[in-house]
Amino acid sequence: MKFVSNHLGVTPRNEDFSAWYNELVIKADLADDSAVRGCMVIKPHGYALWENMQRALDDMFKATGHVNAYFPLFIPKSFLEKEADHVEGFAKECAVVTHHRLKANPNGPGLIVDPEAKLEEELIVRPTSETVIWNTYKNWIQSYRDLPLLINQWANVVRWEMRTRKFLRTTEFLWQEGHTAHATYEEAEEESLKILEIYRSFAEDWMAVPVLVGLKSESEKFAGADHTYCIEALTQDRRAIQAGTSHHLGQNFAKAFEVQFQSSAGKLEYVYATSWGVSTRLIGTLIMAHSDDQGFVAPPRLAPIQVVIVPMGRDEATRERTFGVSDQFAAELTSAGLRVKVDKREKESPGYKYNYWEMRGACVRIEVGPRDLDAGSLIVARRDTGEKETVPVDEVVARTKALMGEIQANLFQRALAFREANTTRVDTWEEFEAAFAGEGGGGLVLAHWDGTSQTEAIISERTKATIRCIPLIPLSPEDETPGTCVLTGAPSVRRVVFAKAY
Amino acid sequence: MKFVSNHLGVTPRNEDFSAWYNELVIKADLADDSAVRGCMVIKPHGYALWENMQRALDDMFKATGHVNAYFPLFIPKSFLEKEADHVEGFAKECAVVTHHRLKANPNGPGLIVDPEAKLEEELIVRPTSETVIWNTYKNWIQSYRDLPLLINQWANVVRWEMRTRKFLRTTEFLWQEGHTAHATYEEAEEESLKILEIYRSFAEDWMAVPVLVGLKSESEKFAGADHTYCIEALTQDRRAIQAGTSHHLGQNFAKAFEVQFQSSAGKLEYVYATSWGVSTRLIGTLIMAHSDDQGFVAPPRLAPIQVVIVPMGRDEATRERTFGVSDQFAAELTSAGLRVKVDKREKESPGYKYNYWEMRGACVRIEVGPRDLDAGSLIVARRDTGEKETVPVDEVVARTKALMGEIQANLFQRALAFREANTTRVDTWEEFEAAFAGEGGGGLVLAHWDGTSQTEAIISERTKATIRCIPLIPLSPEDETPGTCVLTGAPSVRRVVFAKAY
Repeated sequence: MKFVSNHLGVTPRNEDFSAWYNELVIKADLADDSAVRGCMVIKPHGYALWENMQRALDDMFKATGHVNAYFPLFIPKSFLEKEADHVEGFAKECAVVTHHRLKANPNGPGLIVDPEAKLEEELIVRPTSETVIWNTYKNWIQSYRDLPLLINQWANVVRWEMRTRKFLRTTEFLWQEGHTAHATYEEAEEESLKILEIYRSFAEDWMAVPVLVGLKSESEKFAGADHTYCIEALTQDRRAIQAGTSHHLGQNFAKAFEVQFQSSAGKLEYVYATSWGVSTRLIGTLIMAHSDDQGFVAPPRLAPIQVVIVPMGRDEATRERTFGVSDQFAAELTSAGLRVKVDKREKESPGYKYNYWEMRGACVRIEVGPRDLDAGSLIVARRDTGEKETVPVDEVVARTKALMGEIQANLFQRALAFREANTTRVDTWEEFEAAFAGEGGGGLVLAHWDGTSQTEAIISERTKATIRCIPLIPLSPEDETPGTCVLTGAPSVRRVVFAKAY
Repeated sequence: MKFVSNHLGVTPRNEDFSAWYNELVIKADLADDSAVRGCMVIKPHGYALWENMQRALDDMFKATGHVNAYFPLFIPKSFLEKEADHVEGFAKECAVVTHHRLKANPNGPGLIVDPEAKLEEELIVRPTSETVIWNTYKNWIQSYRDLPLLINQWANVVRWEMRTRKFLRTTEFLWQEGHTAHATYEEAEEESLKILEIYRSFAEDWMAVPVLVGLKSESEKFAGADHTYCIEALTQDRRAIQAGTSHHLGQNFAKAFEVQFQSSAGKLEYVYATSWGVSTRLIGTLIMAHSDDQGFVAPPRLAPIQVVIVPMGRDEATRERTFGVSDQFAAELTSAGLRVKVDKREKESPGYKYNYWEMRGACVRIEVGPRDLDAGSLIVARRDTGEKETVPVDEVVARTKALMGEIQANLFQRALAFREANTTRVDTWEEFEAAFAGEGGGGLVLAHWDGTSQTEAIISERTKATIRCIPLIPLSPEDETPGTCVLTGAPSVRRVVFAKAY
């Protein structure tokens, strides 16, 4: 399928991946610029994708015993000071509320901040909610019978990022943050791994994006965590992208906020905690994994529009016929649970509509033309491969439904094959540097590492590649055999995954 | 049903309605205090109620062609200055972000605001989003073919309220705000009335709260609106509560943000707008309409827990039997779409559990005792009336399902009868003052008014009663006949509704 209308196009990926992404996000109607630095508007088409993601994740959280709640947007400045590592990680670039009133400018037009409405203590717009939540949990937890506490929140958060990019890194973003409390280290560990598995399943089974499942190194873990698990995906420009994290917080926040409970043995103990989150960054991950030079490619399970039906006809009588057939298909597909759109715009050509819906990631297109109807079969086109099939009219609905599963599976397999083709194992520093030479990504590189933060820092400085994770599920059994560090030659128990990352 | 366990109780309504409300919100596990002034924590039980509300409303919005999107949390200060009336109404008490960084205190422990990280232009945490949305719509609307634009957003907003009360008026609250754009005044009018009808239907058919549907007077309308429609409910302490508003904004925001479109006739015209919202205030409305001295009373269609099953038994064998029967009921009721909880706690007595779930508003309780099982019938208790029925075991599921509809209908009828008993018509100033004398509410008072803001202000100053609305659907045909103003004696075309309001 070639462009017929140039203004719909985007810069090809191999020409400028970054420009391709930025243009696609706008042209596919997923997001728009806003007047506020680093903040975006999530357009209805992009938000519908987020709603589908939310619904699937929320169902998984609830099926595993979690409930939702809502905690305040604002965090008193003093709360951020309580957990030492957390201060370092989160109390830097953030939105600070210092006043609570505007007033008319006495010296001219407009409004000024009322100097008399200064807050006694500044409030921070939450960059994450551990502090405000643990300050609340303190009142909710007295006894082992109050545990576990399995709470999630869907919310907006703000981190004053210097460089922003829509969905991938924005000043304000939407996410879910789970915060759980447990009586023992083991239970908290089980919880953090349970959530990691939910994230893996969501990424692979819903987003059709294969992910590495692993542990973060000390220097990449969450500020305040005992240890951090993550899922990491690979983009088409061969970079890693962290798509979700699950933190075992140990007793750090319980100690910072004095949250103790009476154990079943009658002893007063600090609570163990986890926190975990995925955000609208998943949308950026999805785009970078599957989309192409024609626009957005969405996996059927999450696509805002799964099927677009394009009826044709230059005269009223023909349109009456093709519109009728299209509405009939739409009704049958909708009642089967599919998200369907009939594009009845009269001033746009079929070619324009094809491009329009390819850009927006409709998974399947059904072309309803009068001559095809006469011949008894219609053209059904799939977005992932661009292939067209001629399908007998009375099989169109069944074939379209079947295509949903086929496209979902194909997207995953294609992304998996791409990852396999871009995963290498190197054993020397020369090979390592060569893998990450140049401007682009270098794929996933499995190499031995001596386990120290110093080595990690030197490698990162020299190559821009960082340790993405220490895999929990090895890509190959060979990765778990000992070797020697690619930089220092010191002993290493296993290979870890390096990549340049978003 | 009397209390067996005093710590579960709340102050009776007729003793101190305000204390009753504040205690109930906490003890029914709906919300909790937070460390941030005027902000609350919505607990899982309260949030589940909000999720049920969201789902029902969202379905209605989507069924009428609306889509969801998301706009930034922050509004540049200059945006608030653009619509003159809007400045007056919303640019007063708000959270102002002035800086974007904290840093370590060079003179001691803790963090300070980095004076070098002052924003060039202050950002306001949105009190409502008209300005930031219309600044975006400017780029989305060029032609009549881009209209109508029917967008809703689920979001948090912040208004720096002086006196707060959980759910009814909090500094931060959750809401939906719809923002639509239309080619003509008539279309915008149709939209604002369509939403008003959705709000009425939601209040009455889901919340079981009868509402007045009407127009706000000039002095009560939204800052920036052409006119404002509302739904108003009555609380058990005989006050009115505004539960939702739908604004016809005319061309005010289009003019402030220069949003013009090419009409089908080729003329450049300003767009017509509506905005409309309901918030977590609905939860406060729901509580004040139905709940009683035993705690929260929830309408079945929205109740977080519709059925609680309490199995009994002092020994393991008995518990095995009653737990089994309870699980069986739960499975059948759950698969019928009901929200069910089996309370298997072993250390709590049945009486404690009855009170516990009455406090939290479970609509129906099924008591599963061994002796009742032997006799072949169980006790089923309904929360709204406290009535208990003895139901044959094999009819328990069917009877429970039927009770959902009966309770929903009874709550609405009871609230409607209460409203009718507390609606009066007065024709003299003496009667009017008498109706609102004293500390409490005075119910709804229908009186003639000369239509001027001066008269409205005097009445409000003398009695604390305000015009809640000019009904669109008259409570009685007689209300639409002319008369003379209750204060000034000037001519009046119809009665309007006065009340003391939350």
